[in-house]
Amino acid sequence: MIRELIAAERSIQMAIERMVRAWNIHDPGAYSLVFAEDADFTNVFGQSFHGKQAIEAQHAPIFLTMFKSSHLSTEQPKIRLISENLAAVDVTWYMTGATDPVGNAWPDRKGLMNLIMKNEDGNWLILIMHNMDLPAFTLN
Amino acid sequence: MIRELIAAERSIQMAIERMVRAWNIHDPGAYSLVFAEDADFTNVFGQSFHGKQAIEAQHAPIFLTMFKSSHLSTEQPKIRLISENLAAVDVTWYMTGATDPVGNAWPDRKGLMNLIMKNEDGNWLILIMHNMDLPAFTLN
Repeated sequence: MIRELIAAERSIQMAIERMVRAWNIHDPGAYSLVFAEDADFTNVFGQSFHGKQAIEAQHAPIFLTMFKSSHLSTEQPKIRLISENLAAVDVTWYMTGATDPVGNAWPDRKGLMNLIMKNEDGNWLILIMHNMDLPAFTLN
Repeated sequence: MIRELIAAERSIQMAIERMVRAWNIHDPGAYSLVFAEDADFTNVFGQSFHGKQAIEAQHAPIFLTMFKSSHLSTEQPKIRLISENLAAVDVTWYMTGATDPVGNAWPDRKGLMNLIMKNEDGNWLILIMHNMDLPAFTLN
């Protein structure tokens, strides 16, 4: 059981790392590989996309515009197993170099991705993702 | 199977309705009843609380301050079963009458709760909740 948990954590961390690398080379195909075929993705604007192909298609144009010079980094994911083959994963992230949808420089961002990841034959993929920007002010 | 699905949807919708009613009478105890004992709750500021008791304790003071005159309403939840006893639930919400943490009137809000709900003997409870404000501007 401990061995399976360690394997799951490792696979999840590697998936997040692959996603971040794909983001930072602005490659929509590589980015989408961390998603399950029937994934649901909801972006920081509340827009939802269903399926790996739609997620790739949605990222392709923004990797050429808003996010073409963006750089993403993440904190260590917080992982909670919710069933044998499902995990809830929170990832705090930071982004520099983006522009907003109307082309203005976007101030450095901090946000939170929350993921439901699914074990498909030892390969943990994102089944559901919601992304959010965190507000600039914080409660003490 | 269809019957179980309908029962699940109904139970989930009723849980959301109870949560909204509890919010609108600003009752932290009633609000927390829709959460599982070991729930994780992350608010729009990215702050996390673990356990039904902590979630109640976190809401008690804000129901007396920021949210004492707030009113919450929601759209129909979007429900996706991710295992026999787990569902991912997205709920778009609207809020009027809140103030921000420093006491200024908070403009009318629109946001998105994303929930992982768990069937405990026919009673669907929130196991994981992340809340977010949606930005005032929207893409096209």
